[in-house]
Amino acid sequence: MSVHAVKRTQAHLAWDNSIPPVLHVASGDTVTFNCLDASNGQITPASTAAALAALDFARLDQVNGPVHVAGAAPGDVLRVDVLRVAPAHWGWTACLPGFGLLADEFPAPALKLWALEWDDAAGAGHAWFDDARRITIPLRPFAGEMGVAPGKDGAFSTIPPYRTGGNIDTRHVCAGATLYLPVEVPGALFSIGDGHAAQGDGEVCGTAIETPVRVTVRLTVLKDRPYVQTPHFRTPAAPAEEYYCTTGVDSDIREATRAAVRHMVAFLGAEHGLARVDAYMLCSVAGDLRMHEVVDMPNYVIGMMMPKSIFTHGK
Amino acid sequence: MSVHAVKRTQAHLAWDNSIPPVLHVASGDTVTFNCLDASNGQITPASTAAALAALDFARLDQVNGPVHVAGAAPGDVLRVDVLRVAPAHWGWTACLPGFGLLADEFPAPALKLWALEWDDAAGAGHAWFDDARRITIPLRPFAGEMGVAPGKDGAFSTIPPYRTGGNIDTRHVCAGATLYLPVEVPGALFSIGDGHAAQGDGEVCGTAIETPVRVTVRLTVLKDRPYVQTPHFRTPAAPAEEYYCTTGVDSDIREATRAAVRHMVAFLGAEHGLARVDAYMLCSVAGDLRMHEVVDMPNYVIGMMMPKSIFTHGK
Repeated sequence: MSVHAVKRTQAHLAWDNSIPPVLHVASGDTVTFNCLDASNGQITPASTAAALAALDFARLDQVNGPVHVAGAAPGDVLRVDVLRVAPAHWGWTACLPGFGLLADEFPAPALKLWALEWDDAAGAGHAWFDDARRITIPLRPFAGEMGVAPGKDGAFSTIPPYRTGGNIDTRHVCAGATLYLPVEVPGALFSIGDGHAAQGDGEVCGTAIETPVRVTVRLTVLKDRPYVQTPHFRTPAAPAEEYYCTTGVDSDIREATRAAVRHMVAFLGAEHGLARVDAYMLCSVAGDLRMHEVVDMPNYVIGMMMPKSIFTHGK
Repeated sequence: MSVHAVKRTQAHLAWDNSIPPVLHVASGDTVTFNCLDASNGQITPASTAAALAALDFARLDQVNGPVHVAGAAPGDVLRVDVLRVAPAHWGWTACLPGFGLLADEFPAPALKLWALEWDDAAGAGHAWFDDARRITIPLRPFAGEMGVAPGKDGAFSTIPPYRTGGNIDTRHVCAGATLYLPVEVPGALFSIGDGHAAQGDGEVCGTAIETPVRVTVRLTVLKDRPYVQTPHFRTPAAPAEEYYCTTGVDSDIREATRAAVRHMVAFLGAEHGLARVDAYMLCSVAGDLRMHEVVDMPNYVIGMMMPKSIFTHGK
């Protein structure tokens, strides 16, 4: 088994099976990807909210690769063992106008910068939500983008996720997890990017704690998983948590989801004194959306679950 | 603080603020409810699938109560501390034609009966999924129905959940949890029912491990929670689990959710040898639906997460 590296500059801006590989590896090889954050370097630790207005959206959500894995053929599955994910010493979270689950209720741009404390040997770290250090966000870094090239010819945006992966923004594919992706082209053509230091299920404001990352994965071709037709994954055990949960109850799932988040924003304001936009960002980086009930028609119950442990002081 | 009891027969079949209370209690009092299962006794340990065809739907999902809590007024919040939930020694899970997230794909009625092992002192127990005991379902009993009477006059079905609670079918409101409900009528008029011995987030096939339960709750009126406008709850810590997850990726949230379940059914068939209907029921009683990503438009990523720990033998 060999060890390989993909550089920051070896990135592309579309899922497109005509993009030539930057690396050829054997099945079972390990690759370390050095990735800029999802702004592609446009946001820095010195940025202000003004940087959001100047963002070139055509340059966002670059992914590093693609990596050609020998022996991978359409119908196979690419097994991606996530061995290590190290965030940078800083990160950012933003509300971008028009983007996010409550975009209509949060029209103003907002940017939050984070100092990230990360112990690489322990594989653990945290960030403080505010200067008063009343809220601590445990870091659980992962790559929001992991995917393989589509079988269909053409250039497809890296912003939505697809059956072949891409921007799945799934918090559970952290170090220790294994992701399975359906292969649609010879060599699979795997790429990765969009480092997140922490995120809840949903990523509701549209961004996580975005950060440059170094990610090490082992890529293995599997021939015996025809049932993997969308991303599947195995997770390591997550910490046992107690939660405070707000629900949305509505006949439209998306409206129930929006209501659950809206009620958590109200709760965080009333009980923890958070400004609305700060509460919305906290939901995105630490709160989990779950579907409690999807069968008692006509109404769905969706929950926004906030771990109690993040409130390190006060209530 | 006083201790009260509500009997099995003290049940009603609609949320309706004109139903007279069966009990008056003070804020802070404790009440034990003795509840039949959600079939209202129509399914018994001796039933076969034929019982499903004979079900009288008008008698389903009865709730016990209502209980009038002194001092509760519209705009207040009823705090429900769930102190104890004890299931019966048996339970059932069914696919009912026309009911469930994949109702169109599972048109045939199916009934599964369970023997439940429950240690009342420990507040823990389990059920085996099949005779080979390859899959163990940890019991985490709760009441699927907990609600207060609506302010709006009239008789509203107990099958859907509402902003005032009802059939929220939310697995997290087990013993040790606290539920908060917005009060809309004087005395709150709280009722409870629909015992579940175990259920995943979603209850995807439409039923959990349905069982008669004895539930003890403490009912307290809160005057300072105007932000509670839908059910909120606090959970006890759940066990740390590893998961296998299948995802659905689609521009329609409901279709993404259906795909996630469909892919888990395929996985459980391929890797664990489960018949399709058994796999669907397993998703309902043990699998959790989570919304991994709801912002990268046009596609949502929904996950069906199955705890690894239930597979006690084999793969």
